[in-house]
Amino acid sequence: MAMADRNLSMLCDFYEFTMSNGYFRNGFYKKNVYFDVFYRTVPDGGGFAIAAGLEQIVEYIRQLHFSQEDIAYLRGHGCFDEGFLNYLRHFRFTGDIYAVPEGTPIFPNEPILTVRAPAIEAQLIETYVLLAINHQSLIATKANRIVRASQGRTVLEFGSRRAQGADGAIIGARAAYIGGAKGTACTLTDTMYGVPAGGTMAHAWVQMFDTEYEAFRTYCEMYPHNATLLVDTYNTLKSGIPNAIRAFKEVLLPRGITNCAIRLDSGDISYLSKKARKMLDEAGLPNCKITASNSLDEYLIRDLMMQGAQVDVFGVGERLITSKSNPVFGGVYKLVAVENDAAEVIPKIKVSENTAKITNPHFKRLYRLYDRESGKAIADELTLRDETIDETQPHTIFDPNATWKTKDLTNFTVRELQVPIFQNGELVYELPSLKDIRAYCKQQVHTLWDEVKRFENPHTYYVDLSQKLWDVKRGLLEAAKR
Amino acid sequence: MAMADRNLSMLCDFYEFTMSNGYFRNGFYKKNVYFDVFYRTVPDGGGFAIAAGLEQIVEYIRQLHFSQEDIAYLRGHGCFDEGFLNYLRHFRFTGDIYAVPEGTPIFPNEPILTVRAPAIEAQLIETYVLLAINHQSLIATKANRIVRASQGRTVLEFGSRRAQGADGAIIGARAAYIGGAKGTACTLTDTMYGVPAGGTMAHAWVQMFDTEYEAFRTYCEMYPHNATLLVDTYNTLKSGIPNAIRAFKEVLLPRGITNCAIRLDSGDISYLSKKARKMLDEAGLPNCKITASNSLDEYLIRDLMMQGAQVDVFGVGERLITSKSNPVFGGVYKLVAVENDAAEVIPKIKVSENTAKITNPHFKRLYRLYDRESGKAIADELTLRDETIDETQPHTIFDPNATWKTKDLTNFTVRELQVPIFQNGELVYELPSLKDIRAYCKQQVHTLWDEVKRFENPHTYYVDLSQKLWDVKRGLLEAAKR
Repeated sequence: MAMADRNLSMLCDFYEFTMSNGYFRNGFYKKNVYFDVFYRTVPDGGGFAIAAGLEQIVEYIRQLHFSQEDIAYLRGHGCFDEGFLNYLRHFRFTGDIYAVPEGTPIFPNEPILTVRAPAIEAQLIETYVLLAINHQSLIATKANRIVRASQGRTVLEFGSRRAQGADGAIIGARAAYIGGAKGTACTLTDTMYGVPAGGTMAHAWVQMFDTEYEAFRTYCEMYPHNATLLVDTYNTLKSGIPNAIRAFKEVLLPRGITNCAIRLDSGDISYLSKKARKMLDEAGLPNCKITASNSLDEYLIRDLMMQGAQVDVFGVGERLITSKSNPVFGGVYKLVAVENDAAEVIPKIKVSENTAKITNPHFKRLYRLYDRESGKAIADELTLRDETIDETQPHTIFDPNATWKTKDLTNFTVRELQVPIFQNGELVYELPSLKDIRAYCKQQVHTLWDEVKRFENPHTYYVDLSQKLWDVKRGLLEAAKR
Repeated sequence: MAMADRNLSMLCDFYEFTMSNGYFRNGFYKKNVYFDVFYRTVPDGGGFAIAAGLEQIVEYIRQLHFSQEDIAYLRGHGCFDEGFLNYLRHFRFTGDIYAVPEGTPIFPNEPILTVRAPAIEAQLIETYVLLAINHQSLIATKANRIVRASQGRTVLEFGSRRAQGADGAIIGARAAYIGGAKGTACTLTDTMYGVPAGGTMAHAWVQMFDTEYEAFRTYCEMYPHNATLLVDTYNTLKSGIPNAIRAFKEVLLPRGITNCAIRLDSGDISYLSKKARKMLDEAGLPNCKITASNSLDEYLIRDLMMQGAQVDVFGVGERLITSKSNPVFGGVYKLVAVENDAAEVIPKIKVSENTAKITNPHFKRLYRLYDRESGKAIADELTLRDETIDETQPHTIFDPNATWKTKDLTNFTVRELQVPIFQNGELVYELPSLKDIRAYCKQQVHTLWDEVKRFENPHTYYVDLSQKLWDVKRGLLEAAKR
């Protein structure tokens, strides 16, 4: 697709260029620096988020370059050194990137992605890296909530027309699939990413015919194996469902086809779906599925389930594709270390009056510890880069916000969450298929306790620091105070 | 730009194809049909919205075609006629489009855009047309609210990193400019659309140096004419502002430069800005501007203004670029008429239990009536296509939801809001420059009474129907009831 070839190098906050020009002039551009991407608050008050967006970052890094026009544009500002502009002409990313795979459940304050690169390179990729992670993690997280609320019913993504821009629709549908949606209405997402696209009719189809019955009959004749009839154009119970039943019985049943569906797009879905189920069953159409749409989200679906609504498929539009109840994923990109002239890694911290905004310094590793028996995730631990966790030895973790709270672990396994993506600018990661990402996400969400997954007041999952990392952090905080 | 050449023809809900295949098979595809785009509820409980997105629709319509790969993909579904697929091979848009110009204040239930085209063509463009209008009208409307709250202070768009996808950032910044933002941080939006991009430094710049002062001094030396120093990396009042003052005095004042700025990105903006103003004034830097950022929106800015905050420039990020408090603009695309075999226009209506969801049928005109003396907009009126409103005669308007409420107008002017964009598939509209759109928007918002513009319980602006249109609508409603 031409879209994947888009050069988004200039999708970059202007200050990345002014800073980079400065790094160039004072020689910092040869220094390696370390940035972490992390987020601080789980959307919708949930217990975890789903990481997504890495594949688009890989595409972006690989095509990263500045064209003659880009450089001419920058020159036009009159504030950039010719040396810097010349440097940009030959610019490519030469650093290292580590990241958690797409589909991984992630928690606040742990690095989703880490960049080690010369200062200018690390700076210029900030905007797009954040944009890609923030957008897709937002939608994957929302989709996963909706899928969990649906308790095994199918969830389809229907929101293109209300998305925030073309990528919001196309790539949003990709993220929704990672989070567990089974398909999308967006045809382009299917051609680009293989997310199954489907859909049958809008109200306009029904209105185009003289009668609703004629519209339904025609549709069943054309698509006998994929007839989902929209039954609410005129009157759902008095006209829509009876006409659908008649069309199914006259067109499909004589051909031995019993798989069909109706779609409810307005009114009281709980009431209408139960009435519809009864009418369809009584008409000898027990295999006829009921699809519901109309401004659904995880809260409405949870309520529908509680009311015993007879819905088999949820079509979810604007509230998924924009994550309407919480449309921002606040991922940030923070400097955590710089290399000095002797190539030693010097940890950096961003201090803040607001303790929640204090960063975790240094080049680190991120481990997830699982209970060996249940397979459930117990805690995550951030360590210095050279630390490992020995599964065969008892291990004590402690809460960095309440250091007297400790927990001794014995029967556990350890997995490092970040994997190398780029090394010296070369892609060293084999991008998994989208299907595999979706399956991995499902399996990883399954490793979380229900208490972490509930919507209301979820248990706060532990993201702890190793003793060595904590010592470094405390030292920097004390130094900053002086 | 390569981006404008993207083929988004497949950014289309899959059901548009299944329906179109049906229209093809039963001959409807030769019939002209009429669709209106309108919205039902003003975002954030406001009194009006700003139309935007037309330029992207024009680009889309002009490049609309289906490639061999697109057709092969559709064939793979096994449900489309070869005749239809062959038709798609030669597909292009041959119909008419009318629309209100970008930047126009728009009200619920009036057609922002009207399509008259053969059924398949009108159907296949639905998804993208809605997406473009919904996204950009959402952001232009939000930006306009923020600009109004700022009472003449400069508003800059800073949200790329939190946008919902690349287009969310790039085109969102375009829409924010239409709504009144003065510039953006998104460099690509400048190169593509000429929205002035700017920005100076992030916290990383400050952290990269051994001291804050050194970071500030270096920046002032590099960009003496554009030094906005970020003063909250360590401690705003004790370190950030004193170091900024020292850098300004040592580097800028000796060169006779007094235009400079500081940026506050955390903490209590009201308190800090007043303290900062005092410190800067006492240091002999009365021309030093104060920029504020950090999760601002129209409500926070209104409060800051009330508190007498000393802010000259507001940098607005995530809450603008996602319209966080209301991230969906609910534009819909509804069939309003079809032509019969004799090419007569037959009005169509979508009935609903919910009276607010009943459509305004027929091929119409949309007029705005202005008071001749004050220049203020009085009401909009929807009429049948062949109706005109004579400014020289007294004119009575009435509320379609309360037909006994009438108003007699005498001293007024009339403007038709929709203009022809495409005629028989040919572009007949000269796209205005973005600067002109922004100026037009400002001028048109000025024609609205303050009562329509306020945030809390704004006056409901009248969108009335002509007597003839009302008679048609009533007739269709009565026929639907039978």
